Amino acid sequence: MNSDSTILTVVGGGVIGLSVAWRAAARGRRVTVVDPEPVRGGASWLAGGMLAPVTEAWPGEEDVLLLGEASLRRWPAFARDLAAEGTDPGLAGHGTIVLAFDAADAGYLDVLAGHFQSLGRGVETLTGREARRLAPGIGAVRSGLHVPGDLAVDNRKLLMALAEAGARRGVQFRRERLSSLDDVPGPVVLAAGAWTGQLCTRLEHAVRPLKGEILRLRPRRGCLPPPSYTVRAIVEGRPIYLVPRADGELVLGATQYEAGFDEAVTARGVRELLEGAERILPGITEYELVETAAGLRAGSRDALPYIGEVGEGVYAATGHHRNGLLMAPVTADAVLAWLSGEAPPEEVGAASPARLAEREQV
Amino acid sequence: MNSDSTILTVVGGGVIGLSVAWRAAARGRRVTVVDPEPVRGGASWLAGGMLAPVTEAWPGEEDVLLLGEASLRRWPAFARDLAAEGTDPGLAGHGTIVLAFDAADAGYLDVLAGHFQSLGRGVETLTGREARRLAPGIGAVRSGLHVPGDLAVDNRKLLMALAEAGARRGVQFRRERLSSLDDVPGPVVLAAGAWTGQLCTRLEHAVRPLKGEILRLRPRRGCLPPPSYTVRAIVEGRPIYLVPRADGELVLGATQYEAGFDEAVTARGVRELLEGAERILPGITEYELVETAAGLRAGSRDALPYIGEVGEGVYAATGHHRNGLLMAPVTADAVLAWLSGEAPPEEVGAASPARLAEREQV
Repeated sequence: MNSDSTILTVVGGGVIGLSVAWRAAARGRRVTVVDPEPVRGGASWLAGGMLAPVTEAWPGEEDVLLLGEASLRRWPAFARDLAAEGTDPGLAGHGTIVLAFDAADAGYLDVLAGHFQSLGRGVETLTGREARRLAPGIGAVRSGLHVPGDLAVDNRKLLMALAEAGARRGVQFRRERLSSLDDVPGPVVLAAGAWTGQLCTRLEHAVRPLKGEILRLRPRRGCLPPPSYTVRAIVEGRPIYLVPRADGELVLGATQYEAGFDEAVTARGVRELLEGAERILPGITEYELVETAAGLRAGSRDALPYIGEVGEGVYAATGHHRNGLLMAPVTADAVLAWLSGEAPPEEVGAASPARLAEREQV
Repeated sequence: MNSDSTILTVVGGGVIGLSVAWRAAARGRRVTVVDPEPVRGGASWLAGGMLAPVTEAWPGEEDVLLLGEASLRRWPAFARDLAAEGTDPGLAGHGTIVLAFDAADAGYLDVLAGHFQSLGRGVETLTGREARRLAPGIGAVRSGLHVPGDLAVDNRKLLMALAEAGARRGVQFRRERLSSLDDVPGPVVLAAGAWTGQLCTRLEHAVRPLKGEILRLRPRRGCLPPPSYTVRAIVEGRPIYLVPRADGELVLGATQYEAGFDEAVTARGVRELLEGAERILPGITEYELVETAAGLRAGSRDALPYIGEVGEGVYAATGHHRNGLLMAPVTADAVLAWLSGEAPPEEVGAASPARLAEREQV
C-alpha cells in the first residue's frame, strides 16, 4: 500500500465502510469500497436499526455508553447531510419501551433504571397499566421503562442512501473478498466486520463472529397494528426487540450465539424469536412472516469496537458488536480526522486497538 | 368450446393437471395447460409428498381409502413410465411411523390401528422403545404404529418430471389465469385446485381453499440425520409430519386453516410447526430452516375429490384435499378413459360430481 492522500480503500460495504467512504469522498478523496456483496451482504442489512445507547448500556460498560452517546449526538446532522445528498435514511425518534413480564424481569429493570439514573439519564418507570397505555396490544406486563431519547433508523434505507450518496460522490465498488492488503492503494480502512480478523494479524483473535437471527413481519388485514415504539424485553432470559418501520413492517430480533462463521437460520432461533414476540405482543401470531435471516455481528473482547491505526496507514473500524448503526457517525468522524491529521472525537480514545497490546502485556 | 377429439385444454398446472396433460399427450392429443404459474404456483409444489392412503384414512372415509389405494397401486407403474420418458420422479418406499406422545395420542393410535385391522390393512403396533429403534432421535414417545406400505415421492422432482415429459410430448403452456371457459378449444379438464370454483358454477361452493403452511429444513454439520421413515404425530391436537428427502432435506408440514384465498405465511403457523417438530425430533432445533411457505389445498365437502363430467365436454379433476399427489395416477386414468369413451376405474365412481346434485335435492 502507499500513502497517497488523494485516494482511500475501504474494505467492507456495511454501515461503517459506507459511512467512511461517503464522508471521505465528500471531502474529495477517490474512494474504493471492496466487498463481495456491499450494502446487502453483512450484519448491517439485518439489523433492527435501534440507535439506543442507553437501553443497550450495562453497568461496567460506561465507555460503550459514552461512545454511543457521542455518536447519537451526531446522528441528526449525519441523517440531515445524507438527506441533502438525495436520499433520506428514515430517522425516527419514537423512543423505546423496555418491558418486564415477571418478578425477575422487573428486578432487572430496577437495576437498569438505577444505573441510568446514576448516570443522569432520564428514564421513566412505568406500571403495567402505563406501559399498556403507551403500547396497546402488549401482553400481561408487570412493569416497564420508557426511554424517550432513543432513535431508530431504517437500516436498509440507510445503507442504500449511503451507497447512493457515495456513488454520486464518485465512490467505486469492487465486488470481491480481499485475502490480503498487499497491492491495495492508499490508506486502508478495515471495516469488514466479522471478517476483519482474516485481513489483519493484530485483530485476528480480537474480532469474532457473533451470529444473530432476525425476522421481519407484517400485519395482515384485521391484525392489531405494530406498536409505535421500539419495544424490548427479556423473555425467558433472552433479549427480544420489536422495531416498527414506517412502512408498517416490524423487525423482530435477535438471537445471539457464538457459532463461528455460520450464517444458517436455525429452527431453534426462529422458534425462540416467535415465542418471545408472542409473549410481548400476542397479536403478532397472525402477522405474516415475510423474512427469516441470519448474519454475523463483529464481536470484540470487551463490547467496545476497535477504531484506530493498526499498521502504517491502516485503520481499524470494526468490532462494533450490536452498535454498528449507532456508532457509524462517530466512527466515520474519527477515521476522517486521522486521515486529515486532525484530532478524533475524544470518546473514541477508549476504542483504540492499542488496548489489545496492553492486555497482551498483562 | 368444441369437442375436437385431437385436442385438450387442461386448466391447472399442478400434479393433477400435469399428469392428465402428459398422459393425454402421450396418447397423441395436442394439449394446452393453462396456468399463471405451472409447476411451482400451487399446492402440489408445497406438499409433503406422502402417498399414504392408510395413514390418511379415517373411520367413515372408506371411499377415500379405496380411491387412494386404487391410485397407490398405480403409482409404481406411473413412476416407471415417467422415468422412461427421461426423468425419475424419486419414488421412495420408506414407510410411515405414526407416534403417540401421551395417553390421548395413544388412544387415538389404538382407534387407528383397530380401524386399519378391520379393513384388513397390515399395520404393526410399536412400543416406545420399538419406535425409537426404527427412528433414532425421536422424542420421548409412548407408542407408535408402523405402516410399511406407504410410499413417498419428491413432489418437486415429480412436478418437474411431469412438465418435462409433457413438453417432450408436445404439451403447450399458456401462462394466464382463465376467468371463463368461453373460447377454450376442445374438451376441458378443470384441475385448477382451490381456484376451480371460479370457473365452474357447479363447483363454486363445493371446492374451497384450505390453507396450509409447510417448512423445509436441512441438517447442519454435527446434527443428527433425519429419520429414514416418514414420521407423523398429533402434537397438542395438531397433526404434524416429517418427510425425509433423498437429498437430505426434511419437509415439515402442515398447518390447516379455513382462511379464504390467503397465502401468507403466519408467525403462528411457523411457530406451531417448529414446536411440534421439536417434540417429535428434538434435534431438529439445530437444523437450518431453508424455506417457509403457504399454499391452498382444494378442499371438498366430504374429503373425496370431484372427478367426472360437470358440463358437456368439461371434466372436473379437483378437490383432492391432502391427497392430490397420491390420487394423480387414478385421476389421470379416469379422465383419459372418459376422453376415449372407455370405462373409468371403478373406485372413481364415489368421486363423481353427481353427488353434489344429490345432496342439493336432500
